[in-house]
Amino acid sequence: MTSTESPAVDNGVNVGALLDARAALSDAPAGAQFQWRAETEWLKGTHSRGTVKTFHGLGGEQEHISTFTFDADHPEHFAAEDQGATPVEIVLVGLGACLTGGVASVAQLRNIQLRSVKATITGEHDILGILGADPEVPNRFKSIKVHFDIDADATPDEIAAVVAQSQKRSAVYDSLTNPVAVAVDVN
Amino acid sequence: MTSTESPAVDNGVNVGALLDARAALSDAPAGAQFQWRAETEWLKGTHSRGTVKTFHGLGGEQEHISTFTFDADHPEHFAAEDQGATPVEIVLVGLGACLTGGVASVAQLRNIQLRSVKATITGEHDILGILGADPEVPNRFKSIKVHFDIDADATPDEIAAVVAQSQKRSAVYDSLTNPVAVAVDVN
Repeated sequence: MTSTESPAVDNGVNVGALLDARAALSDAPAGAQFQWRAETEWLKGTHSRGTVKTFHGLGGEQEHISTFTFDADHPEHFAAEDQGATPVEIVLVGLGACLTGGVASVAQLRNIQLRSVKATITGEHDILGILGADPEVPNRFKSIKVHFDIDADATPDEIAAVVAQSQKRSAVYDSLTNPVAVAVDVN
Repeated sequence: MTSTESPAVDNGVNVGALLDARAALSDAPAGAQFQWRAETEWLKGTHSRGTVKTFHGLGGEQEHISTFTFDADHPEHFAAEDQGATPVEIVLVGLGACLTGGVASVAQLRNIQLRSVKATITGEHDILGILGADPEVPNRFKSIKVHFDIDADATPDEIAAVVAQSQKRSAVYDSLTNPVAVAVDVN
């Protein structure tokens, strides 16, 4: 194809800037040490509101251009008021977003034009654990599955390779599939 | 105190219903097998939208009273448009919500009146991993800390015990601190 017949691939990801950031942070790794933050305020019952605004990275304090809020609650099936998604569903949202953002970035790097990307994330969970009904049942998900439907200007093998690379570099995927130390304290 | 001076503790959690559910599901454990779900739609660049509406549990298909949506993106610092929280921040929101809902539930069970609960969740992250700049650096959080500020009608030891019990029964805490199998496929 001539250049007029082959418009530049544009998934909306500035890969050049990401590659520049990688080079710059490789030379100055202190700037790559990030602290991500959320605040949770209890409202009533199991209903809480999470807020995301500031973070630390690139050697200093940073903030998002707006404040993001997330209501969480339990469904009416648990005698709650269903004022938000459950915390476990919110984690699935984070996983789907991480892998999807990765797919867009990797596709851009590989000059693959995406037309649509949808991910369906399902988490199997035996709630006898969190209910304290069976000490043999863990509290966590039994397993999670992410299914992508991707329409892109690429072969099935190329699309599968993009997904695999996204998975290989996903912060949330790695945080779920490997142990992360979590410390909890009060007052 | 007489009963007129001591109003019933009410954190808005229907503990009786939860205990009934525990008893009922212990007798019928098939109903305790839940599938939580999220769908992610890619919008542009690293911007995606997660949707939470249906789940499976209590032996059948269920749905929330409304559809919850969650925009995710990367900050402008990564040449993105910052149209939502980052996926890792969304995971921190889920963790804070899980532990906070647990605090309310355990406090109710123990007849402790909560006045305020705030959690600050911080996740340390070396982003050289996800940037592919250093193969020795994992993609996941290095560590996470949850700090609670709780004002309640209880001693510091009682408050600490409530937090410890919430942590002991938290689905998200357990999903982060222990490995969960995550399968990813496409088309």
